[in-house]
Amino acid sequence: MKTVNVGLIGFGVVGSGVARLLTRQRELLARRLGADLVLKKVADLDLDRPRPVTLDKAILTPRARDILDDPDIHIVVELMGGLSPAQEYLLAAIERGKHVVTANKALLAHHGNDILSAAAARGLEVAFEAAVCGGVPILLALRQGLAANRIQEMLGILNGTCNYILTQMSQFGKPYREALAEAQAQGYAEADPTLDVEGIDTAHKLAILMSLAYGARLDLDAVAVEGISALDPLDMQFAQEFGYRFKLLAITRDDGHRVEARVHPTLIPTEHMLAKVGGAMNAVYLTGDAVGPILLYGQGAGMMPTASAVVSDIMDLARNLIHGVRGRVPPLGSHNALESTRLIKPLNDLVTNYYFRFAARDRPGVLSQISGALGKQGISIAAVIQKGREVAGTVPIVMITHEAREQDVRHALAEIDRLEVVQPPTVYYRIEDPHLHAAQI
Amino acid sequence: MKTVNVGLIGFGVVGSGVARLLTRQRELLARRLGADLVLKKVADLDLDRPRPVTLDKAILTPRARDILDDPDIHIVVELMGGLSPAQEYLLAAIERGKHVVTANKALLAHHGNDILSAAAARGLEVAFEAAVCGGVPILLALRQGLAANRIQEMLGILNGTCNYILTQMSQFGKPYREALAEAQAQGYAEADPTLDVEGIDTAHKLAILMSLAYGARLDLDAVAVEGISALDPLDMQFAQEFGYRFKLLAITRDDGHRVEARVHPTLIPTEHMLAKVGGAMNAVYLTGDAVGPILLYGQGAGMMPTASAVVSDIMDLARNLIHGVRGRVPPLGSHNALESTRLIKPLNDLVTNYYFRFAARDRPGVLSQISGALGKQGISIAAVIQKGREVAGTVPIVMITHEAREQDVRHALAEIDRLEVVQPPTVYYRIEDPHLHAAQI
Repeated sequence: MKTVNVGLIGFGVVGSGVARLLTRQRELLARRLGADLVLKKVADLDLDRPRPVTLDKAILTPRARDILDDPDIHIVVELMGGLSPAQEYLLAAIERGKHVVTANKALLAHHGNDILSAAAARGLEVAFEAAVCGGVPILLALRQGLAANRIQEMLGILNGTCNYILTQMSQFGKPYREALAEAQAQGYAEADPTLDVEGIDTAHKLAILMSLAYGARLDLDAVAVEGISALDPLDMQFAQEFGYRFKLLAITRDDGHRVEARVHPTLIPTEHMLAKVGGAMNAVYLTGDAVGPILLYGQGAGMMPTASAVVSDIMDLARNLIHGVRGRVPPLGSHNALESTRLIKPLNDLVTNYYFRFAARDRPGVLSQISGALGKQGISIAAVIQKGREVAGTVPIVMITHEAREQDVRHALAEIDRLEVVQPPTVYYRIEDPHLHAAQI
Repeated sequence: MKTVNVGLIGFGVVGSGVARLLTRQRELLARRLGADLVLKKVADLDLDRPRPVTLDKAILTPRARDILDDPDIHIVVELMGGLSPAQEYLLAAIERGKHVVTANKALLAHHGNDILSAAAARGLEVAFEAAVCGGVPILLALRQGLAANRIQEMLGILNGTCNYILTQMSQFGKPYREALAEAQAQGYAEADPTLDVEGIDTAHKLAILMSLAYGARLDLDAVAVEGISALDPLDMQFAQEFGYRFKLLAITRDDGHRVEARVHPTLIPTEHMLAKVGGAMNAVYLTGDAVGPILLYGQGAGMMPTASAVVSDIMDLARNLIHGVRGRVPPLGSHNALESTRLIKPLNDLVTNYYFRFAARDRPGVLSQISGALGKQGISIAAVIQKGREVAGTVPIVMITHEAREQDVRHALAEIDRLEVVQPPTVYYRIEDPHLHAAQI
């Protein structure tokens, strides 16, 4: 039986999971692969930490170089995280003719094009299934399973931390701070949660998904990002009254000419499959022109789910090694992806449905002044809730709009926020509801 | 650019979808594949029927043989359905050294081992993603994306017709006959719905999924099957009161020694992701030992969703042709699958939770006689509903049990059905509820 040798840089949580799968599941993997996968070396600066897997000490090293310079290692797996020196190690591995696997979404989103170019120039493969949605095979679906489709839209819950916090807020009415503390206590959020809660991690993943969906270069700058840290449980309650739930969604949509690319808290109908995605789970809901709507759902993080994706990548590259084939499926799904770009629709040109919450002073004529300002921008109202409960001297008026243009919304809200009867700033969110045009609510 | 020639046998609904994708999406496919996919010949006995796609008449033929004997055709796609002559055509294509794609789940379930053996003997590929869950890439996930996992269990909604009927019955309280007629009117059910409503089509698909999950020969006979045609809306109502919904599930579970293989109407908790799968949609909920729970959801039938899967298979085989590689991923996911079998757990050995509905004559001591008979078999009751409403001279008593063995359940129900206070036969269904042991209801 043939042997494929693997070197692992980064022996943390996910690295331990990969080591565990490669050792414990070795026989099963060999049956499926038709070859023996051998974990030949593991590099980490801290080798003394207790880990959930015990490896032969002879294969451990504190020097990444021992892996990069080992001519017998065919596949290098980078699981350190962070931009540097992860990038240098990946490029060094490619320079030495090795295929590489990484789960590093931040690195890919920022420097993926360079890494992919370097690998392409040498006919080497870069695999990164674990970078998006952990063990859920979403990249495989885009690169192969749905390859006959033009991807028309994708809505993703790509960050378990945010989804956990939002689930806590909406189920138990907890304020953001408390839900975040709970997520930290449960190990779902880091001490500095910025990357997660400000939507940055979700944007990294959306940039990767878009590249695969459209067969174009990675373009992180194209993604408009808003996080969840300013969300008020009050808006979650109102959303619920309208039949919606809040999710931090990554959204992309192709109108044939330009593509949307945005990450923000979004109201989706309670009966939408994505609304059922609770806790720290991830999901992607996408529509292909042939296949129609598809949902993929699973754990987006964690030791073993992420390791599952890393090992499936290792097996994919190993299959190519065994059969002496290169470039069978391009990493971004299209052969000319690195030379292609997509035109991005600026957020101001977005046309969608909106949720507004005005803090109105309880005086006659408030509603007419607000709706007047909206009307001037051509924004029409689909539903209103005005409730008596006074919050800090004002009464909330909540509206759902018909389709409107983001720029018009911003102009209207700027005018409304200058009204004496309204206390600024007005809160607004975007809605994803395919039925809102048809069924007037 | 290289060219890969495709021959299509069967120009019906799905065949038309495939022809449409191969022609309309030709440029997109070429970008993704790095080669040109050419639909070289299409065979169908009836070439005069109107179709949703117009092809050059020169490529149409009434003779499958024109495709089989064409040395320039590399990939033969069989979309006729039925066992014969589909099987003969597939074997003839393999004999002539062609790779084959099929969506024919019945043929695969009955004769898949022979077809796969013939192909393996000649180093040829057989692809059949479209045979299960239409365009949902579930076979790809099992063969590649989740290849690092031991699959512990799978629950599938694999038949859109049944799911449509059950959704109609549970949402609108319609009786089975009426819901079936509705499904037929909507084009979701055929004039003779037996294959669908009796669970046979679902069993075909489960047999295929199990082969891939366990890397073993196809074994249709192993699957225990009950359909939905005897379901009473009354049981759906009671199920709802207990917090459950009825779905026709394909279930397989691996206890490490034996595997379960069954298709039957099943109660699942309302909050389970599978309970949200409405209308004619399909879904597979599976658990891998590394990845944890995963859900894949989408349209399980229809022209374009099924064509999406067929064309992704064609592309997969074309990639191998272009790169001159064979047997890169075995069709059943493991290299020795055709020589492997799994031990099946007989239904009598099943241990699960049950739903019983007794038709009790309203006399004192009924409940004690029933629970006495259950107790004798060691079956303990988790919850009971007894309602005053009399149906045909009896009162329904509904019970949910703790875990019990199927054989004990059958013995107990046989004894109960002999009681004078009970009108036989007692109705019983199986429940899939991971929380039922922990949380006493």
